[in-house]
Amino acid sequence: MIQSFTDRASPEQGPPRLKLLREAMVKADLEGWLVPRADVHQGEYVAPGDERLAWLTGFTGSAGFAAITAAEAGVFVDGRYRSQVRVQTDADAFQPVDWPEVKLADWLRRAMPEGGRLGFDPWLHTPKEIEDLTEALEGSGIGPAPHANLIDSLWTDRPAPPTGAITAYPAALAGKSSAEKRAALASALREAGHRAAILTLPDSIAWLLNIRGNDIPRNPIPHGFAILHEDARVELYVHPAKLDSLPDNCTTGGVTSHPDTGFTAALTLLLSPVRVDPASIPFAVVAALQEVGITPAFAPDPCILPKACKTSAEIAATGEAHLRDGAALCEFLMWFDAQPPGTLTEIDVVTRLEQARRDTGKLLDISFETIAGAGPHGALPHYRVSHSSNRTLAEGDLLVLDGGGQYLDGTTDITRTLPVGTVGDGERAAFTRVLQGMIAISRLRFPKGIAGRDIDAIARYPLWLADQDYAHGTGHGVGVYMCVHEGPQRISRASEVALAPGMILSNEPGYYREGHFGIRIENLLVVQPAAPLPGSHSADSAAGKLVFETLNFVPIDRRLICRDMLSLPEIAWLDGYHADCLRKIGPRLGPDAAAWLTAATRPI
Amino acid sequence: MIQSFTDRASPEQGPPRLKLLREAMVKADLEGWLVPRADVHQGEYVAPGDERLAWLTGFTGSAGFAAITAAEAGVFVDGRYRSQVRVQTDADAFQPVDWPEVKLADWLRRAMPEGGRLGFDPWLHTPKEIEDLTEALEGSGIGPAPHANLIDSLWTDRPAPPTGAITAYPAALAGKSSAEKRAALASALREAGHRAAILTLPDSIAWLLNIRGNDIPRNPIPHGFAILHEDARVELYVHPAKLDSLPDNCTTGGVTSHPDTGFTAALTLLLSPVRVDPASIPFAVVAALQEVGITPAFAPDPCILPKACKTSAEIAATGEAHLRDGAALCEFLMWFDAQPPGTLTEIDVVTRLEQARRDTGKLLDISFETIAGAGPHGALPHYRVSHSSNRTLAEGDLLVLDGGGQYLDGTTDITRTLPVGTVGDGERAAFTRVLQGMIAISRLRFPKGIAGRDIDAIARYPLWLADQDYAHGTGHGVGVYMCVHEGPQRISRASEVALAPGMILSNEPGYYREGHFGIRIENLLVVQPAAPLPGSHSADSAAGKLVFETLNFVPIDRRLICRDMLSLPEIAWLDGYHADCLRKIGPRLGPDAAAWLTAATRPI
Repeated sequence: MIQSFTDRASPEQGPPRLKLLREAMVKADLEGWLVPRADVHQGEYVAPGDERLAWLTGFTGSAGFAAITAAEAGVFVDGRYRSQVRVQTDADAFQPVDWPEVKLADWLRRAMPEGGRLGFDPWLHTPKEIEDLTEALEGSGIGPAPHANLIDSLWTDRPAPPTGAITAYPAALAGKSSAEKRAALASALREAGHRAAILTLPDSIAWLLNIRGNDIPRNPIPHGFAILHEDARVELYVHPAKLDSLPDNCTTGGVTSHPDTGFTAALTLLLSPVRVDPASIPFAVVAALQEVGITPAFAPDPCILPKACKTSAEIAATGEAHLRDGAALCEFLMWFDAQPPGTLTEIDVVTRLEQARRDTGKLLDISFETIAGAGPHGALPHYRVSHSSNRTLAEGDLLVLDGGGQYLDGTTDITRTLPVGTVGDGERAAFTRVLQGMIAISRLRFPKGIAGRDIDAIARYPLWLADQDYAHGTGHGVGVYMCVHEGPQRISRASEVALAPGMILSNEPGYYREGHFGIRIENLLVVQPAAPLPGSHSADSAAGKLVFETLNFVPIDRRLICRDMLSLPEIAWLDGYHADCLRKIGPRLGPDAAAWLTAATRPI
Repeated sequence: MIQSFTDRASPEQGPPRLKLLREAMVKADLEGWLVPRADVHQGEYVAPGDERLAWLTGFTGSAGFAAITAAEAGVFVDGRYRSQVRVQTDADAFQPVDWPEVKLADWLRRAMPEGGRLGFDPWLHTPKEIEDLTEALEGSGIGPAPHANLIDSLWTDRPAPPTGAITAYPAALAGKSSAEKRAALASALREAGHRAAILTLPDSIAWLLNIRGNDIPRNPIPHGFAILHEDARVELYVHPAKLDSLPDNCTTGGVTSHPDTGFTAALTLLLSPVRVDPASIPFAVVAALQEVGITPAFAPDPCILPKACKTSAEIAATGEAHLRDGAALCEFLMWFDAQPPGTLTEIDVVTRLEQARRDTGKLLDISFETIAGAGPHGALPHYRVSHSSNRTLAEGDLLVLDGGGQYLDGTTDITRTLPVGTVGDGERAAFTRVLQGMIAISRLRFPKGIAGRDIDAIARYPLWLADQDYAHGTGHGVGVYMCVHEGPQRISRASEVALAPGMILSNEPGYYREGHFGIRIENLLVVQPAAPLPGSHSADSAAGKLVFETLNFVPIDRRLICRDMLSLPEIAWLDGYHADCLRKIGPRLGPDAAAWLTAATRPI
């Protein structure tokens, strides 16, 4: 079993640690201290030794941060974690803060004394973060002050950094050799007049070098740093324990490897200007460059966009991974349908689903902690079941089941909402609205230049008509045997990156009624050039138009759909999708599951 | 007759004037010269003496600009004017440029010599424009250089500035006294620490002082400047000829009036900081402030947002104006329907429609030049018929008819697309898609915080599915007996202003097949707080939700609708809208038109 159900942190641990931190703040002459969730690589999943936010507060969500002053301790979390943070933190010691509605700077202006010093670890924050914060604090006298990490000085049994082996990723799956990628990026660097680029995002490094790592759970990426030179050479800096077993492509052909202890010193030898991404580079790296007179050129990490636009080999590979994963999910669903209400727990569900994925013989990891939220737990968009929270699925519950697998050929992520027995009409109506939004995105055809921000509302429209909505984006980027959350593309009001062929995105509208139930339906989509429409006028050309091609083929529960609410094109999409499920997944199933699938995919 | 059909400018006039301008540029030691469409007030309609772009190039569209160098003369126009600019300008002398796709700075980098001086009139450009341009030209050595207007020096018979009388606008229609408005704005100024605000937008001044003007066609606004002081005093600067006949509220109660010749001198007496809107203040005003050491505080014109959020009195008033205007349009439509194909010209249509509006006895002006584009002319979104372009409406044509009236109680703007005889299936299918987009916006219900950029794609979705689209925004703000185009609200990918109660917006998706036909359907909407939905759960509260309330009630031509393409909610909206048309407009019509309306509004 990969997933565990232990309670990883508890509210009780917080108050004594908070007390220690405040004593350390006094000694360091700091009136405030920032505790981010992120590690030095700005990743979503972090190593055990980087779980500083959970260590201090008890909150284990994948996003958020804390701001500590002598009298207050705000834990800033977004819409996905509003309920979870209340459960996981001690209410007397910590105050949940609705972020981003409440801005950190506004909170600090109120909570900190005028002119107070706000300590932060310069390796855990980006220059953009600190610059934005400094600007927002203007006039308050409050100034962010870099300082050695206070949490690390208190965390006596802090786990050592990970030393997972680095492995080569087959160029046949990647669709491009590392040498090709390095040459293309180096050429872009020369064109921009940049002498080198510093890479600190592990998935950028993994993509560029066609390697994978094993340092953190769920994301097969290597912790480390890299310097890409204008002549296409790459210096890779990793934990010394990894050096001996590096794959060939990390030690030959213009790629050299080094212990990460030498990274900071290596920075000082670069020629100006050096490209760094203000959204992900550690503040400390820029400070190190500037200290020796090297000019940073702020620009996006050059790997991000080419990595997001998958090669046709990657798309074909992940397509196969999705069919394999879909077949496993169908086997699970057949089993699930046969269990009477009141007999299964959420942990049973997670366990059985993981087993189904393991039975493929190809599962390398799950792509994130499976979310199995029944009844009121479904209303927590990022619920993770533990032994203490485990709920028995009861008659009338909805179960939100969101999970995915890491396979060598792809990363999957799919959500289905399932009925336990007979569910209410309000639930079914809301489910149908969520489905309508999900179908609207799936059917979309759009001109080049359109960004996620332009289409996010299309998924919300049916819910909005009923005064319903969801407090998260409609979709996130997804990698190929890489991180299940990757940028820059998103379907979100916050995303202005134009959607481009090869980008993989999730499409996952939802609805959450706190204390009652949750709904989410999620498929992964890949952006593709549109094929010409039959019979269309030459003035209405498909050239430059884009469509979403669906990667997942797993039935959407017919029992939860109010057919009368659907339009004819929506019904046609659903029936067509279900026919595709049967055609693509059916042949991969045993006879019982195939019979189940035939029934589950009959026209609505 | 208000509208004229003369050809206001001709392509032949351009080349000799361009030659004169280039000679003047040489004398002034300038390698480039900018010719904006805008006047000193950044308005869309300008006085005859401000028609510099048309004088030079022949292009009479309401938006665009020219950039002149020794060898090239680019005329930059947006999607609405791509065809028109080709007809109106001399192709040997002027090069149409697709704007904003082609950036001015990129064009200049290519067309101007390195280090060249780009002359501009500092009264006709804003600091933001010049700053953005300077930034975009960085590294090219090309520098914008303020200079006395070269066009004005060549235009020997340039018309004198207008001197239209200023009149009081009834507080009963405005819903708020000028004193109330001034007090509220002054309080906001004090809170922001601004000592005064400079107002150069005529509709801001008209709104603040509850006055109207008569300086330019179509927009009942007064040319002038105003200074709003932190103590709520206002100094109004207008043409000396207007001073004698000013209404009482411009010369009493904290408002004083002055000849506009004293405006620049008055600026120098202000205390710092002085609020100016970087998007509309003339560059010359900021230069004048800075020359005497006054600090400009860049912030939006304080009138814009409160002006956009109409009072309930304004909404009621414009509602009545829209019903009156709708009745006139229905009388016109009855007449139009009775004319056989091949008998009417576009000018006949414009003339008859204006007559119908005049017959209300309340028409003060049309709100813009009526667009009546038949057949291929319909594909020009902003077509203005002239004697030379006038087309006879032929069997199978679509007619795009877009017009509006200025009434004391409101400004209207409505588009209907009408069939001439029997039109083709392709036209009807496209019409239905445009209608679906227009209905989708009309039905929208959305949370606070949503901006026009978030919903623009909702109107395009049905068209996108057929690889169709329109090269303009979905909607613009509209005033009340004020400008038919007003900010800050728009339904457009370019608009990030949150929609707020009281804002009036047009909803006008379209489709244009160049050389063939055009389609546009437009209603005006007012943003209103949403009423609770019957039977909804307490978790799905209407609090904070917004809806669009429709202001226009004129039938949408049933003969152009493919019923099979509509969903049940779309049909329900259409039938409900038509029932409202009959109920609200029917009682205002004569018996023949009432019978016509009954037929035109029967359920689809």
